Amino acid sequence: MLDAGVIKNSKSNGSMTESLVTRRAEESTVVWVGDVPIGSDEAVVMAGPCSVESSEQVTSTALAVRELGAVILRGGAYKPRTSPYDFQGLGVEGLQLLREAGDAANMPIVTEIMSEDDVAIVCEYADMLQVGARNMQNFALLKKLARTRKPILLKRGPSATVKEWLSAAEYLLHGGNENVVLCERGIKTFDNSLRNTLDLAAVALAKELTHLPVVVDPSHATGKRSIIPACARAALAIGADGVIVEVHPEPEKAWSDGAQSLTFENFAELMSGLRVPMKSVVSNVSALVM
Amino acid sequence: MLDAGVIKNSKSNGSMTESLVTRRAEESTVVWVGDVPIGSDEAVVMAGPCSVESSEQVTSTALAVRELGAVILRGGAYKPRTSPYDFQGLGVEGLQLLREAGDAANMPIVTEIMSEDDVAIVCEYADMLQVGARNMQNFALLKKLARTRKPILLKRGPSATVKEWLSAAEYLLHGGNENVVLCERGIKTFDNSLRNTLDLAAVALAKELTHLPVVVDPSHATGKRSIIPACARAALAIGADGVIVEVHPEPEKAWSDGAQSLTFENFAELMSGLRVPMKSVVSNVSALVM
Amino acid sequence: MLDAGVIKNSKSNGSMTESLVTRRAEESTVVWVGDVPIGSDEAVVMAGPCSVESSEQVTSTALAVRELGAVILRGGAYKPRTSPYDFQGLGVEGLQLLREAGDAANMPIVTEIMSEDDVAIVCEYADMLQVGARNMQNFALLKKLARTRKPILLKRGPSATVKEWLSAAEYLLHGGNENVVLCERGIKTFDNSLRNTLDLAAVALAKELTHLPVVVDPSHATGKRSIIPACARAALAIGADGVIVEVHPEPEKAWSDGAQSLTFENFAELMSGLRVPMKSVVSNVSALVM
Amino acid sequence: MLDAGVIKNSKSNGSMTESLVTRRAEESTVVWVGDVPIGSDEAVVMAGPCSVESSEQVTSTALAVRELGAVILRGGAYKPRTSPYDFQGLGVEGLQLLREAGDAANMPIVTEIMSEDDVAIVCEYADMLQVGARNMQNFALLKKLARTRKPILLKRGPSATVKEWLSAAEYLLHGGNENVVLCERGIKTFDNSLRNTLDLAAVALAKELTHLPVVVDPSHATGKRSIIPACARAALAIGADGVIVEVHPEPEKAWSDGAQSLTFENFAELMSGLRVPMKSVVSNVSALVM
Repeated sequence: MLDAGVIKNSKSNGSMTESLVTRRAEESTVVWVGDVPIGSDEAVVMAGPCSVESSEQVTSTALAVRELGAVILRGGAYKPRTSPYDFQGLGVEGLQLLREAGDAANMPIVTEIMSEDDVAIVCEYADMLQVGARNMQNFALLKKLARTRKPILLKRGPSATVKEWLSAAEYLLHGGNENVVLCERGIKTFDNSLRNTLDLAAVALAKELTHLPVVVDPSHATGKRSIIPACARAALAIGADGVIVEVHPEPEKAWSDGAQSLTFENFAELMSGLRVPMKSVVSNVSALVM
Repeated sequence: MLDAGVIKNSKSNGSMTESLVTRRAEESTVVWVGDVPIGSDEAVVMAGPCSVESSEQVTSTALAVRELGAVILRGGAYKPRTSPYDFQGLGVEGLQLLREAGDAANMPIVTEIMSEDDVAIVCEYADMLQVGARNMQNFALLKKLARTRKPILLKRGPSATVKEWLSAAEYLLHGGNENVVLCERGIKTFDNSLRNTLDLAAVALAKELTHLPVVVDPSHATGKRSIIPACARAALAIGADGVIVEVHPEPEKAWSDGAQSLTFENFAELMSGLRVPMKSVVSNVSALVM
Repeated sequence: MLDAGVIKNSKSNGSMTESLVTRRAEESTVVWVGDVPIGSDEAVVMAGPCSVESSEQVTSTALAVRELGAVILRGGAYKPRTSPYDFQGLGVEGLQLLREAGDAANMPIVTEIMSEDDVAIVCEYADMLQVGARNMQNFALLKKLARTRKPILLKRGPSATVKEWLSAAEYLLHGGNENVVLCERGIKTFDNSLRNTLDLAAVALAKELTHLPVVVDPSHATGKRSIIPACARAALAIGADGVIVEVHPEPEKAWSDGAQSLTFENFAELMSGLRVPMKSVVSNVSALVM
Repeated sequence: MLDAGVIKNSKSNGSMTESLVTRRAEESTVVWVGDVPIGSDEAVVMAGPCSVESSEQVTSTALAVRELGAVILRGGAYKPRTSPYDFQGLGVEGLQLLREAGDAANMPIVTEIMSEDDVAIVCEYADMLQVGARNMQNFALLKKLARTRKPILLKRGPSATVKEWLSAAEYLLHGGNENVVLCERGIKTFDNSLRNTLDLAAVALAKELTHLPVVVDPSHATGKRSIIPACARAALAIGADGVIVEVHPEPEKAWSDGAQSLTFENFAELMSGLRVPMKSVVSNVSALVM
């Protein structure tokens, strides 16, 4: 099992290097995305559509989720899709629409970067760059992003161990970018009851081992609308610094990931669910009266 | 992905049978273990040593955890061990010691049943019988337990899908025993950062699909003492009806599973952690001031 | 990774015990099932229906597979089924029909044992007892079987590591039964392309680590008729001592596992495939002419 | 489970597109790497060091493996490493050394491409480009490689389903490059007995579903020198069109992956193992004499 000193730092010449992600004493990093701090005492909610589809779709979503408590707008302009025949995203036009929506709602924006060639253009538009799960070990991309100093949302790969996830973050810090937020989004397991298996204990472990903020994406982790609010709640309870969820005005018409997108109403429920007090614990049952 | 009507009920003759575990409307089952209700509005904490080792060990633990808020005492008299050379449990003597400790602390007791041959003797001593993860699909044992009507704690197998888990419960209900509590205890995945991967989303799913109470065992799920309290908290946040944890007076001397056993002090922290309010959510950052 | 001395043999009192399954020098165990040796220089083919359904079904299958080269008849009288509403096997009647079919074809028979209570009756009828994948860590059953001295076909659990599999065998040898044949039948992974993931490298590893015979079940491992012959061939190529496959006169009418059952014609193809020479290797391409 | 028509080809506008990787009738593609055909009736052996380290290391290896029967030289100039502190490859110098070694041994060369920025330079030196397991879903890289028409060795991702693997190949064919060879190299599972779990049944499935050649990498799949020859043999037995293995003059001094590298002597054993006839099958035991 993992413990402190999680990343082996022996250079090929035998000298040891200090791991940069490992927590030192009570140090905790706060990553600022625009004016929003991630990693502070308060949790952050990021929301928005899976794919940017149109000006109206993304702006209406931005305004709705901001009103309900989200503070960062998410949306995909470049979409990693299993099949080349699936919708691949609007590209630069999508970046523009997302930026306009963020500005209209006064929210910083986060969007996925998929290609080394797109680093400059995405940096121009976005406040935070997301490295998708499939690219977590795209080391060429990580090295390029390390030189930007832009905040990075580093999703855990679907089959990445916690050590591999932290080592990917180490590439970013080692390359000079300390603005890294880790994101758990579900791992691949034998169980097909849900889209992926949400690994919340890994969040607790990552919080213990590193000084980086950790957020949770219950949308991709579960793929099932009805349980996303409960998962978001559990994420905060276990110590996550925030959640990122997919919201769409009309999920059934979404160009991607409709089944896991929340309606505005679902999102309102999620937000109010985050404020429900913890369940009380049985303690005065008669069996205990001696 | 799973939905209502999760268990295919077509008999070989083609007629359909109603699934007995599937939730119908707002129905929720409360299982009583002695005077303790599992599945009510309040959560239940079960605690005790992995193995029963001695009268003093189990009784001191029972008194300590009861004082701190546990309401059911757990402890193993028959231990499923990977190797035949590992400690296999005290057997009947263990049952007696556990019963005495439960009586001393005025707590009902739960203990694992491993053999069809032991059903009668374990029923004699215990208030609730645990089917361990490795025996979740020991159908001969399930059929025999179905005839006892004793409360059953049905652990999810380490590679059981949610559907297989609920189908195992269906064996118990179909055989006549409705007193079933499901227990998530971690599944086997590629990630060896922790002992198992705690699948909390499966708890939310099981609560949605069935009317049975669901509890969580963060001790076996993680095998790592320091994150067990956070996992217990997340379990309640996601909707679990309780948690079951391992507590030992001196974990470093435990005959089994010492690394995941809590000290009395750890357990006190876990209990107080369950009462900490949910983290607040950022909402008034300057970025949002228009 | 695993190496020799795979099973930790420290007793609770600290003394060390020799592992009984670990290979010592060039020792290899041959297990005799009736007059059929498993673990010799020649491979063994076991075949028969998933479930025993009728006298005609099992006897016609026995005669057909024997004619084609199978030397042990398999068939299930007690069936482990995920759902209580699925066909559970004919029980004792199934044992009788299987015995009669074996006698008619002059083949020893292997059948699954699911309950501690059935050990005596199954021993009475069968030449070899199969411990199914779900019961690989049913230690109570293993201990009882260890006392019978009957040949045991020990299937690997769907999420058992090689070490756990060998440790289960150790329970049998430690209890006094040295007639153990290991059987790889596919493990559970994220990939749902096939029923399970056939782990042939584990066969090579088990052959290296232990002195026990190892056979492969490509029917359960893949669940897909068309690739079973190729998998059987690969099993022998990697060093397995035999294969066990499901054959049914009319798979589309089988009461269980029809999709993975071979017709007699499919089985004939499998047998002839085992005799096809290894593919030749390119060696004289013009690129290599200097 | 997967079947023909494995890739959903519905464009967003609803029209259907023919999958380009799906097998049509008896069509089989042969990919030529220099003068070496992959996908013909004969199997191909590719061999060479994990990393190119020096002129002498790679050239001595090339000459040795060619002498023993390998026809394509492999070697890494750009190395994907979990930690930024591990050896990252010699880069362009490595490409030059590999090219010189290939020329000296009159063998075409295959090497990994990790960055979109390196496509031109790697195409200049190499005869075949390898997409590593971690980059299987680096769609930006796939799209760029699709435009080169160079032979591509597409490794299966460690958690890619067969469908995802074939869909990645579809990106290459859809983009205009038909010279694609699939490579199974082990998947991530719960079992840590070996480095990965070699999924040979997926090779049989990929051969059935597509017209592309499929090769197997038993070095990465197992990470264990002693069983690599048996795995290579099983790969050919199940229908693979070749194998690719790591060979090093002095594995214990290798800069990466030493434990899984074969010595020249090991490699000679592997080659002769490929020519051993299939095991014979028991058929005339006395039990069968009626």
